[in-house]
This record gives sequence, C-alpha cells and structure tokens, in this order.
Amino acid sequence: MDLGIENVVVNGQQANIYVEGNKIAYIGQEQKQAQRTINGKDKAAVASIVNGHTHAAMTLFRGYGDDMKLQEWLEQKIWPMEAKLTPEEIYWGTKLACLEMIKCGVTLFNDMYWHNREAVKAVEEMGMRAFISEVFIDIPGMQQESCEEKAQRALDDFQNYSSRIHLALGPHAIYTCEPDTLKFIASFAKKHNLPVHFHLSETQKEIDDCVAKHGKRPVPYLDDLGFLHSNLFAAHCVWLDNEELDLLAKHQVKIIHNPIANFKLAVNELLPYPGIKDRDLKFCLGTDGCASNNNLDIFEEIKFAALVHKWKINDPTIMNCNEIWSHATKTAHEMFGVNAGEVSEGKYADFLLVDLNHPQMVPCHNLVSNLVYAGNGSIVDTVICDGKIVMENRHIPGEEEIISQAKKVTEKLFSR
Amino acid sequence: MDLGIENVVVNGQQANIYVEGNKIAYIGQEQKQAQRTINGKDKAAVASIVNGHTHAAMTLFRGYGDDMKLQEWLEQKIWPMEAKLTPEEIYWGTKLACLEMIKCGVTLFNDMYWHNREAVKAVEEMGMRAFISEVFIDIPGMQQESCEEKAQRALDDFQNYSSRIHLALGPHAIYTCEPDTLKFIASFAKKHNLPVHFHLSETQKEIDDCVAKHGKRPVPYLDDLGFLHSNLFAAHCVWLDNEELDLLAKHQVKIIHNPIANFKLAVNELLPYPGIKDRDLKFCLGTDGCASNNNLDIFEEIKFAALVHKWKINDPTIMNCNEIWSHATKTAHEMFGVNAGEVSEGKYADFLLVDLNHPQMVPCHNLVSNLVYAGNGSIVDTVICDGKIVMENRHIPGEEEIISQAKKVTEKLFSR
Repeated sequence: MDLGIENVVVNGQQANIYVEGNKIAYIGQEQKQAQRTINGKDKAAVASIVNGHTHAAMTLFRGYGDDMKLQEWLEQKIWPMEAKLTPEEIYWGTKLACLEMIKCGVTLFNDMYWHNREAVKAVEEMGMRAFISEVFIDIPGMQQESCEEKAQRALDDFQNYSSRIHLALGPHAIYTCEPDTLKFIASFAKKHNLPVHFHLSETQKEIDDCVAKHGKRPVPYLDDLGFLHSNLFAAHCVWLDNEELDLLAKHQVKIIHNPIANFKLAVNELLPYPGIKDRDLKFCLGTDGCASNNNLDIFEEIKFAALVHKWKINDPTIMNCNEIWSHATKTAHEMFGVNAGEVSEGKYADFLLVDLNHPQMVPCHNLVSNLVYAGNGSIVDTVICDGKIVMENRHIPGEEEIISQAKKVTEKLFSR
Repeated sequence: MDLGIENVVVNGQQANIYVEGNKIAYIGQEQKQAQRTINGKDKAAVASIVNGHTHAAMTLFRGYGDDMKLQEWLEQKIWPMEAKLTPEEIYWGTKLACLEMIKCGVTLFNDMYWHNREAVKAVEEMGMRAFISEVFIDIPGMQQESCEEKAQRALDDFQNYSSRIHLALGPHAIYTCEPDTLKFIASFAKKHNLPVHFHLSETQKEIDDCVAKHGKRPVPYLDDLGFLHSNLFAAHCVWLDNEELDLLAKHQVKIIHNPIANFKLAVNELLPYPGIKDRDLKFCLGTDGCASNNNLDIFEEIKFAALVHKWKINDPTIMNCNEIWSHATKTAHEMFGVNAGEVSEGKYADFLLVDLNHPQMVPCHNLVSNLVYAGNGSIVDTVICDGKIVMENRHIPGEEEIISQAKKVTEKLFSR
C-alpha cells in the first residue's frame, strides 16, 4: 500500500485505512504494510468538502470593500481593481485561496475567474481538484476573441492538465451575457459534455430587470434559450418562484447555495429550501469569493446554512446536521461527478483527519454534530487528495512563501 | 516593566506596548526594559472580547441534543442530564469552556450555572475575569435555602475571591421565578450594587404565557415588580415591542444578543436592532451555552450578528464591522464596568495578539474587517488578561489535562 492511516475513527469505529494510488483500497481491522503510515489516534477520518462556488483569486480583495450596497461596491471597489489585475496576481491569489481552502478541509472547488491558466497552475501545484471556468462576459470592448474561439482554446488547453483539473464554461449571468452567448454556450457544453457555471437569481433587481427586458422571469427566459440542462451549476438561486423551481427540477439543474454572501450583501431572500427539497433538486454549498464573505471556510457556510433555514421556517428540526453535512460532501461530489464524498473502499482517497482533541470537538457525543455546529476549518489536521497528503499537522508545504507573496502582490496591485 | 510586546501593530501603527502590574503602562516608539518581552512581529494587538451570556459547564453537553424543538430538547435531553451533574463535572466543564473561550480571544465572560464555587475555582485557575451568577429557579423541591440565605451566602463566598471574579444574581427567567423572588432579587441587587443576569423574551411562547398569566407582556410585568434597573443584564431580548423598548431604555437595562442560539432554536425573531440603536440601548454579544450553539467562539457570533441584521433589514451598510467590533469589545467592557476593551494606556492589560500571517487574515486592507468577517477564534495567537499571559502561541498551560479530564467526566456522567 502507498499510505496507511492506522487506529483512526472512521464511520463510527476504530479502524485502519489504506490507500493505493489515488483510491481507498482497504478499511478494516487488518494491519498492512504501507510506504508511509500516519498514526490516527485521537483523529477521525471524514469525507473532504466541496466548495461549489467561488472566485478564488479574489482573496486579494478580502476586506477591501465591506458594508456597501452591491452596485457601489462593484463600481467603486471591485471592478476598478479587477481591471488592473495581472496574471501573476491571479496566480498568487489562487494559491492563497487554495491554501485557505485546504486548511478548511476542501479538496474540490468550482471556480469562476479571469486568467484561468494561472488558476490551473496554482491548483495543480497545490494538489487539489477543481472545476475551472472559462469566463464569458459580453462587455463591449472586452472581447478579443469570439465565444467559439475562447471555448475551443480552453478545450485545447485543458487537454494538457492533470485528471484533477476540469474545464467548465462560465457565462457570468443573464445581465452580463447576451442571449446568443448563452445559446452558444449551452450547445457547446452539450456537444463536449462540459459543466456550465452560472450566477442565477441572486438579487431582486436581477428578476425585475429580466421581466422588464425579456417579459419573463430569469428561469423561463433561460428555458426558452435552451440553456437549462443537467450539467448547469447555478449559484445563488435565491429569488425563485414555484414555476421556476419546476423548470429547474425538470432539467435537473444543480444548485449552489451561498448563504453567507447572500446575507452580507443583504439580498433579503433565501434559497427556497422547502421547494427544493420537495422537488429533490440537488444542491451543495459555496463560500462565494473572499470579497463578499470574507473567507473560504466552508465549515462556516455549513453551519450558517443549517441555522438560517431553521430560523426562517421556524422549525429547529429541519436541515439537521446529517442532512447538511451530506449535501456538503456526498451530494456535492455526486453533483460534480467526482468519485469521492465518502470514506469507503473504491472511492478516491480524498478525505480529512479531524482533531478529536481540539477544544471545540470535546466531548464528542455526535461527530457529525460537532463537525457542523461546533467546528470550523481549524479542526482539520490532515488533508489527503487524490491519494496524496496535501496538509499534515496543519502544515502545507510552501505556505510561508504563499503568505509572503500574496502580501507582496497585493501591495503592488493596490499601489498601481 | 513586567511585560513588553515589541514591534506590534497597535491602533494602526507599529509600536511597543509595556505592561506594569495588571495595566497597560506605555504604548509608543520607545524601547523599555521588561522582565519578559514578546516579539510582536506580524501580529496586531487588539482588545480582548467579552462573552456576555453563557452557561460555561454546558460544554459537556456539546452535540448531545440538536435539531430538536426547545421543549423536547429541555425535557428529554438537557434537564435529565443536568439533574445528574456533580460539582466535579461542573468544574471540568467550566475549565473546558475557559480553555475554548481563551483560545477564541475572550478574557471576560458572564456565566449562569449551578455550583458556582466550582465555576469560580476553574476561572481563578485559568486567569480569566468572570461574572458568576448565583442561580435562582423556583422549582418545587429544589429550594434548600431561602432566596435570602442563598444570596447572602454567595455574597459572603465572593469576598474570598480575586478581583477578577464578580458576583451576579441569576434569576433564570419570568417563567421559572415567582414574582416575590424577582422582587427580592431586585432589592438585594440594589442594596449591594450587584448585577442581575436574566433571560428575557427569548421565545414567542414566553410572551404569550406572560400575557395569559399576568395580563401584560414581560417587560411591563417586570417594571411593575421594580425589577428593571441599570444593572440588569437581559439575555436574548428577541420579542420586544416599542413600549417595551422604551421601558428598557428608561431604566438603562443592558442587553446581551445571542443570535446563533436564537437561530439554532428557531425562535423566528431577532433582536430589534433599529429600535435598540434609536434608543441608544447598550448591547454586547454572547454565545449562550454550548448545548445551543454549539461552541464558544465569539468571533462566529460577531460575524453572524453583523450578517443577519443586514439581511433582515435589507441594507448591507448597517451594523458595519467597526460598530459590531466595538459592541463586542469596548461597549461590552463598559457595560460590565471593567476598565478594558481598548488597547490604551491606563486600561487593564486585557488584550490579544492576533496572527497577521494566518491565511484568513491575508491580505490586510482593513484589520477590523478581517477580525469581523474573515477571522475566527483560530487567528488569536496570544491572550493577556490582568497583565498575565494566559495563552502564548496558541498554547495554554495544562490544556492537555483539561481535554482529557473533560472527556473522562463526560463519559462518567453519561454512563450514570
């Protein structure tokens, strides 16, 4: 075996886990020879978590604009700085994001940002899995290539990357993409079996503007364009009526729930959880970018989601800890078609060792409750992705350089 | 000087801080002789935080009952186990709570629980400050002493404790205390200048029951009893109408806001922040007990508060990061009459060194934004309380024993 974790709590009992290549080969009481063995005493092995929607390199904007109205924040703070970003800054911003996500137990994330070659380089080096978008925004003067050229170039590029890196098409939103762009993307995605990463129905303004411009709400408008399909990953989905929920369910659209960003930007509505559950729509969680959260700790998002729905629906029994934990791990990996999300034989060796002696994990009447309601990213001790140790004893190789370079490029960027 | 922290970021610039006895004696560019010097490079000194409402020893119930309706949770889970608690378990439960709170940057907390001699012992040993309640609940069969005897005994006991330990009277709530008990406590508190720690208007049922029983809502009912005064610390205050807000303002009652517990128990309302701000009512934050949160990370509570009010009021500009940080530190210490909450000369040396190289703190466009929106307890590197170092490099003396004993007594308690 390549890697062994011995004497660890896994699926409710003490056992040994052995990894061969990038898969979990054995879980049980036997002790086997392994090239490298980790002592799992006082640790539990749990599935790693998916961050279903983020803009990784925006870590560089953490805390740069807060407590502002969405439009002012974008126009006065974010867009002017984004216009100045160089590939080098995207690279170090993504490295910093990966560092933070690994420290918080994420091994797979779904990213949407500019300069995806730099993002890919960062993810490859950090040993994570990611869906990386080729972004499409129809802003006059911004297009240097046609949609077709962009999509084809990205498709070609991604042939050269490891199996941990997946291409997604990332049309930004209905208010930034022309109908023809959306139509092209849907057809290109279907032809090449690519996921589409999209912002949908985040604010009331988006709905109002869509009705004014197209005479219908966003989801029926997208349905008319042939844009809805089972490989569409729609982030936010806050303002949806029942007809729209039915359409999303009919096409098996996947939903990413980002409640912290929704609350911070005061969008005043919440993912319609009862309607989503009734229709068995698949959803997982995302942190959104650091400019609107302001961190990438997916544990925070998990607890926040469980709490805000209980409060809004006035029922403490809904979205219980097992359910939300499963959305964030098992369902999330299934949604992205990645063979992980559970610690069991035959799955990818993508899992975490959490510290059962962390003060917030003591006592441990119920491990999943502690993961959801008591822990945060700091309970994660060791992270394994694709069979490789990417963090051990909370240390990630090269982290000091990432911190130092991220500070340096931020200073450069903000002094331009 | 007794202690120096050199080359640290404090109030926006690089400086040295010197502590003499239990106070901050000097902040500035000079370098002075000190018995012990800490290198503050890549750290910021910030005020320590107050946990305004908790039940410390309930750490032992972390994750024991979740996702349940309040009444079932109390009757099936909490009360049967509380009836079995021994002083030894309270002691270790409180030690674990202190450990967790220090790790999350709290130096002062306001506690309400049984067996306060054990709680005091734990707090004295851990080096924190606390207001510790003598609890009053009128449950038939539970009273072994009269209210007067209990209050007087507590007053006598507390003469023997250090200046970090303060007595509060802790009548539990209107639905667990008879009018005569509340009247007695108000008069005893006024006579001896003691704070009163109380649960107020947490659930709709509490309001409905009060109206049915007493013909008026809780606050006017308490006003009639002479119970409202400026040394009353009322936790929750979720269900308040304008007349009640006026009465609380008239008597300068202090409010403790516990949004996470309110959301987890789905109380379906929220502290009426606009009405509280209009009337300049003082409030700070509390985690509530670990059975209903399920941790004591006050950073989580700070972010949660800032976010839920923005979302409910539909305005991302309200409760900005400076305001909520100030409530949690400066206002909170003022409310409790403790000369801390700011890192400045003449204040108690109660402050934190936070790690500016923590991935969630990089980059640092705005320190307070990072503290509120990006950080959690794990950014705290060093904690100083009353001039003494109680945590350094995230290590607290004796923490391994506390973890091990807390596990052991929990096992004993739950096997009885």
